[in-house]
Amino acid sequence: MSQERIYLDHAAGGWLLPKVQKELLRSLVEIQASPTGGHREGREAREQLEIARKRVADFIGAKSSEDVIFTSGGTESVQSAIRGWGASVRQGTIYVSEIEHPAVESAVRRLGESGFQVRRVKVDSTGRFKWDGVKVEPGAALVCVHLAHHDLGTLQNLGEAKHFADRVGAKLFVDATHGAGWVSLDVEKVGADLVALSGHRLGGPKGTGALWIRSGTPWTPWMEGGRQEGDRRAGTENLAAIVGFGVAAEDWKKSGDDFRKDVAEAQKVLAEGILKEVPSAKLHGSKLGLERSPNHLAFSFAGLEAESLALVLDRVGLAVRGGSGCVTREMRIPPGMKGIGASPEESRALILFTLGPEIDLGKISKAVDLVKEAVQRLTSILPS
Amino acid sequence: MSQERIYLDHAAGGWLLPKVQKELLRSLVEIQASPTGGHREGREAREQLEIARKRVADFIGAKSSEDVIFTSGGTESVQSAIRGWGASVRQGTIYVSEIEHPAVESAVRRLGESGFQVRRVKVDSTGRFKWDGVKVEPGAALVCVHLAHHDLGTLQNLGEAKHFADRVGAKLFVDATHGAGWVSLDVEKVGADLVALSGHRLGGPKGTGALWIRSGTPWTPWMEGGRQEGDRRAGTENLAAIVGFGVAAEDWKKSGDDFRKDVAEAQKVLAEGILKEVPSAKLHGSKLGLERSPNHLAFSFAGLEAESLALVLDRVGLAVRGGSGCVTREMRIPPGMKGIGASPEESRALILFTLGPEIDLGKISKAVDLVKEAVQRLTSILPS
Repeated sequence: MSQERIYLDHAAGGWLLPKVQKELLRSLVEIQASPTGGHREGREAREQLEIARKRVADFIGAKSSEDVIFTSGGTESVQSAIRGWGASVRQGTIYVSEIEHPAVESAVRRLGESGFQVRRVKVDSTGRFKWDGVKVEPGAALVCVHLAHHDLGTLQNLGEAKHFADRVGAKLFVDATHGAGWVSLDVEKVGADLVALSGHRLGGPKGTGALWIRSGTPWTPWMEGGRQEGDRRAGTENLAAIVGFGVAAEDWKKSGDDFRKDVAEAQKVLAEGILKEVPSAKLHGSKLGLERSPNHLAFSFAGLEAESLALVLDRVGLAVRGGSGCVTREMRIPPGMKGIGASPEESRALILFTLGPEIDLGKISKAVDLVKEAVQRLTSILPS
Repeated sequence: MSQERIYLDHAAGGWLLPKVQKELLRSLVEIQASPTGGHREGREAREQLEIARKRVADFIGAKSSEDVIFTSGGTESVQSAIRGWGASVRQGTIYVSEIEHPAVESAVRRLGESGFQVRRVKVDSTGRFKWDGVKVEPGAALVCVHLAHHDLGTLQNLGEAKHFADRVGAKLFVDATHGAGWVSLDVEKVGADLVALSGHRLGGPKGTGALWIRSGTPWTPWMEGGRQEGDRRAGTENLAAIVGFGVAAEDWKKSGDDFRKDVAEAQKVLAEGILKEVPSAKLHGSKLGLERSPNHLAFSFAGLEAESLALVLDRVGLAVRGGSGCVTREMRIPPGMKGIGASPEESRALILFTLGPEIDLGKISKAVDLVKEAVQRLTSILPS
């Protein structure tokens, strides 16, 4: 294949930011000691670790970098946040939607099995939480909300989530593993208590994540063992990757406005192009603007199966995600699509286009052409 | 400081094997997509993932690479093994020593708190399990044993552990996060059911580990969310690091005999040198030979505090671990030292010397001199 590939599956696994790659490669060669060592090598490692922690804290507006712990990724951050809260309070109520990422959903299910109440929050036709009418229980409580939806790209209104949490006396957990960076997040302004981040979705290395825990929040460590991370996350630090994550966080803090502006422009070209050129295309979740993550588009193409379309697109040089971002083995209805009332046909036709910080508008326009041609070709061979 | 540093804290954080470093740096630049992607980038990533899995499986003599899952490190592998077994059987008995690594101990404690019986196995004066006289309970059971002790360096007799497990109808979990590579491990020959590995202790990248689960073993995934790793470990794969881990496993399979021979020679020079030159030195755990990991020495120096001695050694260019490998914040008695009946004074004087695969015998001899001089200097200023 001679043409250059166009890769639009960044949410699943994207490129390292150039600054991150440079620092990561340097760190992998230069830093090998564990930050727990009392020797010079250990002290130098510890210094690098704390610089990264400060950068991540600054990125999310945390007052103290001590409230940030590093994890192995977004999934661990989410699991640790929810299950760690559960292990601390022992019983209580979780307020959560039915459209969460499986990492959230499985943690909630585990707590549900061990005696916690689970109250489901309905969502509207774009995937936004509808807090009115949620049945409130007394006792310890946790509100679980995501920043951006992993399939729909819809952004939640964190102000409303905080308002509800305050009303019911709940702690607020924000799953920012999708959305962080692409929308500004200030944990203090939001008034969150627990926030989960994924390193690689910020152009940082895979194998890194962070959990921010507001001081005083009931929470018990989940990954236990050695005394790393202030006794809150055991295991030898993945230090070079953490250093890279720190650089990514700093890059976003510095250049986030540019990243967001560029990606929003590309999103607009891609979305408007597809909607104009492909009559069967339907955008799911929020429309472009303040309620949608600027790196994310969720389209269905009436009458087509997502896997087939994704396969054809791959053959002509465009890598996208056919189906939910977290389900590939079997075709089933992604909870996000079900939650917003999408039809089973639409759900099976879901294609995710997720963008990274490095934008090439020429490639985006080319992607529109490829989608148009592929949809035409597939539609033409369908039984009428 | 002009002299070259001597680094003997490899168990806490060591260098990458040269082949690993090369492949890791290449993979970080070349592979970014998630192996879950249906597109070409995803398929290529999946291929790399499965090559690494096969290499790790081959390294431990596993019949099927499907029984290997990748984790974020040794701690997660251990936690996932024990807690995953517990979540599956719901109630039962754990047979375990009191000298385990905190990752094991904390998982066992969690299960104990949720209704499991915990039966403690005593150890002899070198740290080896004494299976006779252990009180046996009916029902589901797990025997937890380590391959090499993280503080003492003593190797366990896995044949005896397997014999006991069979006698009581228990599954056998081997924490091989310390010891793997340095001693041969064949999971089929051992007859283990669950085996935990650390990537970085094999000269692989930090942030990688593996858990081998014999097909049919009662076990429930612990890190839940997306459907990675055959639904057994959720979270975006840390693929470049996994590739590096695979290369490390292959390198050990190919060159392990050389690594072991070289390190045993260095261990001998270091141990015999210290014992000859430093009258106050005492080796804890097994003596050199088949019952001790060849990369590990645990010494106490009568009358000295480990932290002080480690500090002095660091100043003169020798990085060692003062105190237990997993406790640095407070001086307390490491369970391994308590278990073998070491005195509190000896326990507070524990220094760990851990070697990596790249050996420089000149540096090892120099290390002996530095230890001798430091002990003499510190002893001379002690109140007599």
